[in-house]
Amino acid sequence: MQINIAKKAAADKAATFIEPGMTVGLGTGSTAYYVIMRIGEMVKEGLEIRAVATSVESEQLAKAQGITIVPFAAISGIDIDIDGADETDIQLRLIKGGGGALLREKIIAAAAGRMIVIADESKLVSQLGKFPLPVEIIPFAHELTMHQLEKLKVAPVLRTREGQLFITDNGNYIADCHIGEIAAPEKLHAQLNDIPGVVENGLFIGLASTLIIGTDAGEVRIYGRQD
Amino acid sequence: MQINIAKKAAADKAATFIEPGMTVGLGTGSTAYYVIMRIGEMVKEGLEIRAVATSVESEQLAKAQGITIVPFAAISGIDIDIDGADETDIQLRLIKGGGGALLREKIIAAAAGRMIVIADESKLVSQLGKFPLPVEIIPFAHELTMHQLEKLKVAPVLRTREGQLFITDNGNYIADCHIGEIAAPEKLHAQLNDIPGVVENGLFIGLASTLIIGTDAGEVRIYGRQD
Repeated sequence: MQINIAKKAAADKAATFIEPGMTVGLGTGSTAYYVIMRIGEMVKEGLEIRAVATSVESEQLAKAQGITIVPFAAISGIDIDIDGADETDIQLRLIKGGGGALLREKIIAAAAGRMIVIADESKLVSQLGKFPLPVEIIPFAHELTMHQLEKLKVAPVLRTREGQLFITDNGNYIADCHIGEIAAPEKLHAQLNDIPGVVENGLFIGLASTLIIGTDAGEVRIYGRQD
Repeated sequence: MQINIAKKAAADKAATFIEPGMTVGLGTGSTAYYVIMRIGEMVKEGLEIRAVATSVESEQLAKAQGITIVPFAAISGIDIDIDGADETDIQLRLIKGGGGALLREKIIAAAAGRMIVIADESKLVSQLGKFPLPVEIIPFAHELTMHQLEKLKVAPVLRTREGQLFITDNGNYIADCHIGEIAAPEKLHAQLNDIPGVVENGLFIGLASTLIIGTDAGEVRIYGRQD
């Protein structure tokens, strides 16, 4: 595999925020891969932490690197969560869920004291919405939920894979909403979650506290959220 | 089975709102039972309607009465939904979900042009919250979601049945929240649904348009929502 310099730079920087004894949330995806690999190196060098994962894929990768994965029942909180994003703006509002793991990623992010988002420059946008917004919906009467989404004029399309409806880890469907430009992310977030049948949506607002952008030259830019 | 005069009176009155050609949503529970039985009589007398059901139980009962049940893909909306409630106040704000079907009931209610709620007098309260508020949550990392609920001070308890965790029709858990008095239902509704891991909660606000209360004397009182 060819190393992506930008993603690796962001991931390596994010890992420096981890301190001994922390409980760490591990994200999912191509950028989170580099974080898990880097944490694995740190563990081999003697760092003692424990981790929870946002997907079976990340859990298996972490275990293979010698990272201790603990059950959710064993923890009272998460100190730091490091994850990627499909889009982020300068206010650290994110779109996630291209891989379909948005709900698990959001549960972990909300439980974390600090969420660090890592991405290459292509993910930083001036306005969210070019990336289709994933919305996780309940299979029961999903036709009615799709009607409700259509009323919001978000152009929802049920996600398919190999000709079949895509099923999330939680047994639900994904409606990818082709919005183009999301003028008011906070408002849209509330409107979407207020629809019965919508489990969660891919807008992450007020969750990320630090954004680390890696460049092709291997440098990083760090942004903090101003509240 | 002994007939409950109050529930039957409310149900019979509700059925008078049904007109030929309508698509009708059928609720679930002991009061909805009487509506389905009454609609069955009307169908036998020649009324032509079609219906969708909020549970397998109601669907089977309806079919047995000769009511035509249609798939959700075959309808573009629901004209009228008739369902019970565990609690209702005079502003037609409801708590539902004692039976665990709150999500399906809410999807149907939200899709309906009109929701008629039927209940006996014992369900009408001055302030919601004595009945434990059911909150449907995702099994994944439910321990973290329970922590989030505890932060809201709603005293959540995972529902069990015969010593096992109760599983909803959608494969999720129920946290029954023992609040006592819900001072601001609208605010609580938004706070609950904003927690990742919460699928839906049992507060129905702005959904019911008509409330029919049956009395033990077989009379009914009708309330409309003032918006």
